[in-house]
Amino acid sequence: MADPRPIGVFDSGIGGLTVFRALAARLPRERILYLGDTARVPYGTKSRETVDRYTRESARFLLRRGIKALVVACNTASALALPSLQGELPVPSLGVIDPGAHRACRLSESGRIGVIGTEATIRSGAYPEAIRRTRAGAEVTAVACPLFVPLAEEGWAETEVARLVAESYLAGFRGRGIDTLVLGCTHYPLLRDVIGRVLGEGIRLVDSAEATATEAAEMLEKNALLAEGGEAVDHHFFVTDSSRRFEEVGSRFLGMPLARLEQVDITGEG
Amino acid sequence: MADPRPIGVFDSGIGGLTVFRALAARLPRERILYLGDTARVPYGTKSRETVDRYTRESARFLLRRGIKALVVACNTASALALPSLQGELPVPSLGVIDPGAHRACRLSESGRIGVIGTEATIRSGAYPEAIRRTRAGAEVTAVACPLFVPLAEEGWAETEVARLVAESYLAGFRGRGIDTLVLGCTHYPLLRDVIGRVLGEGIRLVDSAEATATEAAEMLEKNALLAEGGEAVDHHFFVTDSSRRFEEVGSRFLGMPLARLEQVDITGEG
Repeated sequence: MADPRPIGVFDSGIGGLTVFRALAARLPRERILYLGDTARVPYGTKSRETVDRYTRESARFLLRRGIKALVVACNTASALALPSLQGELPVPSLGVIDPGAHRACRLSESGRIGVIGTEATIRSGAYPEAIRRTRAGAEVTAVACPLFVPLAEEGWAETEVARLVAESYLAGFRGRGIDTLVLGCTHYPLLRDVIGRVLGEGIRLVDSAEATATEAAEMLEKNALLAEGGEAVDHHFFVTDSSRRFEEVGSRFLGMPLARLEQVDITGEG
Repeated sequence: MADPRPIGVFDSGIGGLTVFRALAARLPRERILYLGDTARVPYGTKSRETVDRYTRESARFLLRRGIKALVVACNTASALALPSLQGELPVPSLGVIDPGAHRACRLSESGRIGVIGTEATIRSGAYPEAIRRTRAGAEVTAVACPLFVPLAEEGWAETEVARLVAESYLAGFRGRGIDTLVLGCTHYPLLRDVIGRVLGEGIRLVDSAEATATEAAEMLEKNALLAEGGEAVDHHFFVTDSSRRFEEVGSRFLGMPLARLEQVDITGEG
């Protein structure tokens, strides 16, 4: 049984386009509705309660548009809101935390794993929990890197400033002997080069986007929700702020123009 | 006739506490209701339309609590939303753009004035317009400094990173011969030292907070709205996200604990 309904992908803003891209490549027959809550971005500095409310409104918006599954592409929303939301959703759902944690556990030889993310993601403890659920006895060191998001969004990834900021944050991993680092925020892959240079060779960087796409495909298959194919699929992007900045910065993430981009109001969606 | 009603001060988040402090010092008999829209901060990267909607919701929230005058402490909201809102308000109102522009025009000898602010404030052209209304023939150079807000909020003002970022942004003023620079965002006074060092001696830095407090006092007096008084006034702080971060970061701005802090929902206020 093929299911032609779309997959919903939700992010606090633009960064989730890395997950969108991986999903679209992994599941070329699936139509994707992407929602970026650009009018309230960022989530990473906000409270659990507020992130929870925003994530519920976004999920409801996408459900009303007939999605068959929900992928939460935002690490902060995955960490703070998805666990409580998941049981209430009428469709299968997946965040980026578990796929990233699974992948890190597979890649790490020593079991000493580092995680970087927003203030809210790190404070939640979601990554260490998910990693230890997968690999008991793993030693996890988690460090918040709040300035990485604005640096990535402003296009400062290749600057001396980015190097100094990375050195300051990543000093927290010195002497911990990690062999694997989870890039626990969708913006961080844009800083992959500088993070890699500062950490030095021999440390694997885990980008959740690929791992999430793979687990999303498994989730659809397990639930008999895969689409059949044939014709070109028609993705749809929704944003809550004006689309101008999304188009500009989005190209840095996607490397292609965003067709079917629409501004919507999801406030009080329910 | 003394008017005991409170003054409303609105900001996108925490930065407006610098304006609150200047107002409370200048008008010690006035009770102030401060509203920080911390659930949707920052405004400086968002569109005019969205900033307009948020500012209207905030104004309505404060009006329903009986304010006699509104001070918009956020530069972005003052630049993008206040001009269209001002005519519709039932009470006198004041933003931070005009007071900052007036002060810069008074201080500048050469008439060559620099302005720094968020992306949205600079794109709006509000400061150059306000400066030229006050001093025809002024030469204004305006530069957006988007990374200054996260640097200030994260407490990185006194770092090598802040110096490099300041050097990069402020290079836009080289050869312009400015003698005065408007700090056109409430966060920037936290970076006053590094900005001053990078620009070198002989350039006056204008912080709108003091100028706004002075003009707010004049506005109240002109409209016969000053309070009388005696007893200690009782300020009230409202935030739209949880108050924990506001309390933490707020102390960096205010240097004292925030009594009477309350979380509220202003969505769809009208």
